[in-house]
Amino acid sequence: MADAPEGILETALYVDDLRAAESFYAGVMGLERIVEVEGRHIFFRCGDGVLLLFVPEQTEKPPSDPAMPVPPHGAYGPGHACFRVEAEALDGWRSRLEGAGVAIETDFRWPNGARSIYFRDPAGNSLEISEPKLWGLS
Amino acid sequence: MADAPEGILETALYVDDLRAAESFYAGVMGLERIVEVEGRHIFFRCGDGVLLLFVPEQTEKPPSDPAMPVPPHGAYGPGHACFRVEAEALDGWRSRLEGAGVAIETDFRWPNGARSIYFRDPAGNSLEISEPKLWGLS
Repeated sequence: MADAPEGILETALYVDDLRAAESFYAGVMGLERIVEVEGRHIFFRCGDGVLLLFVPEQTEKPPSDPAMPVPPHGAYGPGHACFRVEAEALDGWRSRLEGAGVAIETDFRWPNGARSIYFRDPAGNSLEISEPKLWGLS
Repeated sequence: MADAPEGILETALYVDDLRAAESFYAGVMGLERIVEVEGRHIFFRCGDGVLLLFVPEQTEKPPSDPAMPVPPHGAYGPGHACFRVEAEALDGWRSRLEGAGVAIETDFRWPNGARSIYFRDPAGNSLEISEPKLWGLS
């Protein structure tokens, strides 16, 4: 098999309210905001990747700048992403989320013993926080 | 600001055809398939993360296993993700994609000099392959 990409550089979710997204992803999740185009998107650094929050009604429009012809995209309905933390940090994350008024939707262990905590962002996306051994990673 | 997660462990896209997704993500992108639940999802390892391809009509159903109450999710319409490769590998990736019959939707440089190549997966998701300096990463 040919070489694969080294990793995923950008993970995207879609939201309806960028201010609510900023409050949540910066204020609760602790991510660093790196760029925003008002009304269209807000991006956050997360480890060695970037989390992109897009407003789909804007990103599905054809590109207007010939120098940066970013193709249209845009999805509706709850998406999913999972954040990686160390196993020992999961109790603290649960407390932090609850302390911020974020409902814990479920918190369980997979057959391999890895623990996952699920919750929602303000747009209704299904977020998970888990430990690397979920996928046999260290 | 409180600590942030270490990174993104799972990136999700939605597809309508898991066999087409496997042909593309394994056969063209070179990703290692790690698990499949027939008709519902297929997952691939990608560097230190996992790319999840879900059929939204299945994942939006409430969980049926009380031991693994995975919350429902599911989005419709073209999503987006970006793969990370070294800058020197981008010419080879363009050739590889074209050789596999994948149309290059656009290929340009951002103001910071980083090059992005855009194409679509069989489900119409907007995929990008770029170099880490796009986001000031090394």
